[in-house]
Amino acid sequence: MNASTPISPGTIERGLAELGLTLPEAPPAVSHYDPFSIVGTMVYTSGQLPWAPDGILAYRGKIGRELSPEEGYAACRLSALFGLAQIVKAAGSPDRIVRLVRVEGVLNVAPGFIETPGVLDGASDLLNAVLGERGRHSRAIATNPEMPLDCACLIYLWAEIMPCH
Amino acid sequence: MNASTPISPGTIERGLAELGLTLPEAPPAVSHYDPFSIVGTMVYTSGQLPWAPDGILAYRGKIGRELSPEEGYAACRLSALFGLAQIVKAAGSPDRIVRLVRVEGVLNVAPGFIETPGVLDGASDLLNAVLGERGRHSRAIATNPEMPLDCACLIYLWAEIMPCH
Amino acid sequence: MNASTPISPGTIERGLAELGLTLPEAPPAVSHYDPFSIVGTMVYTSGQLPWAPDGILAYRGKIGRELSPEEGYAACRLSALFGLAQIVKAAGSPDRIVRLVRVEGVLNVAPGFIETPGVLDGASDLLNAVLGERGRHSRAIATNPEMPLDCACLIYLWAEIMPCH
Repeated sequence: MNASTPISPGTIERGLAELGLTLPEAPPAVSHYDPFSIVGTMVYTSGQLPWAPDGILAYRGKIGRELSPEEGYAACRLSALFGLAQIVKAAGSPDRIVRLVRVEGVLNVAPGFIETPGVLDGASDLLNAVLGERGRHSRAIATNPEMPLDCACLIYLWAEIMPCH
Repeated sequence: MNASTPISPGTIERGLAELGLTLPEAPPAVSHYDPFSIVGTMVYTSGQLPWAPDGILAYRGKIGRELSPEEGYAACRLSALFGLAQIVKAAGSPDRIVRLVRVEGVLNVAPGFIETPGVLDGASDLLNAVLGERGRHSRAIATNPEMPLDCACLIYLWAEIMPCH
Repeated sequence: MNASTPISPGTIERGLAELGLTLPEAPPAVSHYDPFSIVGTMVYTSGQLPWAPDGILAYRGKIGRELSPEEGYAACRLSALFGLAQIVKAAGSPDRIVRLVRVEGVLNVAPGFIETPGVLDGASDLLNAVLGERGRHSRAIATNPEMPLDCACLIYLWAEIMPCH
């Protein structure tokens, strides 16, 4: 896979459809910054929260207390889907994504909850499933004592896109 | 705005002057590392602390307990000013900054304090005001249970600069 | 030092030998992601844990409670050694590393433990000693309330390598 090879048209939509998903709207930033930035062919998203369709958070509170690990996994998966929407918006089209580079996840966990890698797999598994070999990524994992809006997680994606003309 | 277009001379100094600010000296690192690194045309700063002119911290302690949200905002603004000083030092001149790319902020908060995006706006608002359209950025936000020297915040900046000759 | 200048053959092995160290195997990722990603000439590692040779963690628990600061320093040094092993694997050979760019360290600390920069120097000192001028780096430091497997630290490295053919 060469960085300048285009992805086959429709790959991402088909990958999402196989999971019963469609690409959501890329959400606006929650404060005075942009949802993503582009430098050359790299896109870096801001933190993506697990929004419900009605514009409130689908997952709030601490994993291991208010939320089960399975709900934490679902929160990471949902946030990663919004991250993918940001990358698509940055690229201009799903077919202009070259590949994912990095996933960074921050989790809101109860004291003593250390099974965080399996929870963050909610993001990794979705992106691997949808993007296939182009979804391979390095990963950073964190837990924070307090999160914006008490969200269950924040997911950040780094991706490579085709050059803008 | 093309990445190779120079910024108009004096833009950053004028932007700072309108806010009643001048560019401080770029502070040294607090331990065995460099205050910034350069790769190609990208600069990445190390964490910037909210220093007072006398070389002690202007803002220490937890936002929401020892410090008000307004003091937290001021701490982020001050740290971002030092981040800008690092970028200028890396670029060689304020006029060689192409644009800001990313702001990462880590906040020292009291238990239950989740209004963190508005506090980190202290950094974003300053950089947006001084750099205008070139100040647009994606953002990462974090809270940490313990911070170096009990500082109120750490601010990291990513920026694009003109190529070195 | 130009980014395309090769490092002298054997530099890294000699640097390690002077410290009584050899390069370990690059460990696999602990979940559904890759241990590093490459974009152009940049390598970004996933979080490196302080593994013992028998595949269990050499340093677990909170620095300032279960672990002394000196043990925290040793944990960072050990994790950085695994980070170096990942960079070497990504580059294909120790002699294809151009330079280190950034060290990011997340520490597992007891409440009130703020002497974190000296602990993270365990990573910086090792990399500076082995890589010399090419080891210079910016740094990000964090503390997290809960860490994967209760590890003492996670170390992430960014490095520049020679272009792949």
